[in-house]
This record gives sequence, structure tokens and C-alpha cells, in this order.
Amino acid sequence: MTAESPPPVSVALVHYPVRNKRGETIGSAVTNLDVHDIARAARTYGVYRYYITTPYVDQQGFVGEIISHWREGYGATYNPARKEALEIVRVVDGLQQAIAELTAAYGERPFVVGTSAQAQDRTIAFTDLERMMTAGRPVLLIFGTAHGLAPEIMATTDAVLPPLQGRTTYNHLPVRSAVAIILDRLLGR
Amino acid sequence: MTAESPPPVSVALVHYPVRNKRGETIGSAVTNLDVHDIARAARTYGVYRYYITTPYVDQQGFVGEIISHWREGYGATYNPARKEALEIVRVVDGLQQAIAELTAAYGERPFVVGTSAQAQDRTIAFTDLERMMTAGRPVLLIFGTAHGLAPEIMATTDAVLPPLQGRTTYNHLPVRSAVAIILDRLLGR
Repeated sequence: MTAESPPPVSVALVHYPVRNKRGETIGSAVTNLDVHDIARAARTYGVYRYYITTPYVDQQGFVGEIISHWREGYGATYNPARKEALEIVRVVDGLQQAIAELTAAYGERPFVVGTSAQAQDRTIAFTDLERMMTAGRPVLLIFGTAHGLAPEIMATTDAVLPPLQGRTTYNHLPVRSAVAIILDRLLGR
Repeated sequence: MTAESPPPVSVALVHYPVRNKRGETIGSAVTNLDVHDIARAARTYGVYRYYITTPYVDQQGFVGEIISHWREGYGATYNPARKEALEIVRVVDGLQQAIAELTAAYGERPFVVGTSAQAQDRTIAFTDLERMMTAGRPVLLIFGTAHGLAPEIMATTDAVLPPLQGRTTYNHLPVRSAVAIILDRLLGR
């Protein structure tokens, strides 16, 4: 990779396994909005791939239809900026498939970084992660839908970013907003 | 105001006058998502008021119904965090009403700051605005829906923040993401 290359960062939005409000492990439904808003923020900050992970075949089909409408259908002509954003989206069964694809693309396994609204073990500071990225290490940032990533998937990450903190104890940012803020902290100019 | 007070920042989301993709001045429809996502980000960062400005009476009614569902209806019990976020939302005819309310609340007119995806005259740097806020000056940040604030409203602002820049020339962030990122830059810890 050269200094001119886009930064080696990808994003995954996990729909299984995640937690519900009672802390149980569930699978969530993909929402249209998470596809679009996160693709637009990811495209803005030069993200390489935005993976939407779901093991449910009907959900994979639903996302595939949204994407092809905007990439190849009427939407591509109506709104070329949307087409450009959705070009980086990939639908995968699970995180292992995303990691395998990135490992093949980069020739090394990406550093997998979890995110959470609660403090976790094995925290990596934003500045340290930024330094790794600047040094050329490929990174995969993973985000959970519903009430966040399930512990079994959190345990497979290499490190976890600290929770975003505003000026209050209110702690219910939409995942779409959290992705935008974290990309800006790591990649904003 | 004491050092413990929430920062004196409010947000307004403007639905008229804004620009369409051809640069003409239009009024846009309020979307449910902008109400919720921006309320949650604003609540996280300690924003005092989130004004939704629209001169259209039917749109004011629509937003009023969303808010009362979550503040007083079934939604308030089902999701108290949503109720808490929507408590800061106010629906107003236009920016003048928001400025009048804030002037009454603070005893001084807020410093009105525009935002844009394009570079504007009278730019204020993020760090300078942050310094003004820390010194206790109340600030109203205004955001445009559709293709951004119309020139006639931009001309009434006291200053304008620079466009957000990622690592690419892609410049189509959702307004919801732009609000979240700007609040994090000014108020994030």
C-alpha cells in the first residue's frame, strides 16, 4: 500500500449474535436505514468495505435487493451518489467470512476491533488505533445492532474501543451515529 | 450558569428554506428518523434544545404525534430512553422562534452557527467555537435538510462551521450523521 491508498479500514455491522434488552443473545433484522446511512458515512471516510453480517437467507436477499436497486436499477441513475456509497457494501454470513475476504485482499489478517456502549477489557485508545492504521495495519471495526455485540463475539476481537462519551450519562446513541463518530475520530481531518 | 451546567448548546434542523438538488429553495418533509436519531445524539452530548423548524402546520402535527407517543403514550413505558431523548425536542415555525425562546432562556441572544457541506464565508474553526462555548456563550447550531440551508438563511447566521472532511472527495453524509459528528467534535470527551 502507498501513502496515497485509502486507509485500510473496513466496517462490519453485526446482526447475529447480538444482545436484546434483557441481555439474551438474538439475531436482529437488517434495517434499510443502517444500510444507507452507514454506507454514506463509510464512503465519506474512505472505508474499504462495509460488511453487513446476517446468517438469515431472507435478510441477505432483502439487503441484496436494496443494493441492486441503487447500484444497477433505477436508483443508480436517479441518485449516483447513493450508487457510489453502496458499491462498498458486502453481505456476508458472519464475521469469519468478512475476515477471510479481508485477509485475502490484504495478505494479512486484519486487526479486529470491537465497539461497545459499555467499558470492556482489552481496551485500545483511539490514538493508538489511529497510529496502527497510519502504519498500514488493516483494521476491521465491528458494531452490534440491537443492544450491542454478544459476549461470544466480543471475546473473538483483538481489542475494543472505549465507549463514546458525551457530556451526560445518557448512553443510547443509534449505531448509525456511533459509526459516523468513530470514523470521524479515527479518520476525520 | 455554573461549571456543572450542561453546555449551552442547542440544535435546529431546518425544513424551510432549504435547497433541492437543482439549488432552488424548497420546503422539505420532516422524517421520523431525523426526529429520533438527532434527539438521541443531542441528548447524549447534553444539548439543551433540539428544534425542528417547519412552517407547515400538517408537518408540525406529524412531529407532535411522534413526540407525544414516545413522551406520554405507550412508547414512554416501552422505551424510557426514547422518552428522555425526545424531551428536549421542540417544534417551531422557524428559526426566529427558536432564537426568541433561547434568548428568553439565557438572557442573551445565542450565537447562531450555520453548517454546510460546502465552504462558506465567515467560517469559524471548531476549536474557536468550542472555546466560546466553554466561556459560557450560548450557541445555536443550525442544520439543513434536503441539499442544505438556503442562502437566505445562511446569510442570517453569525458564523459557519467548515465542511466535514473525510479522506475522500465523497461529500454526501446524511444530516443525522453530520449532527452526531459535529456534536462529538465540540462536546465529545
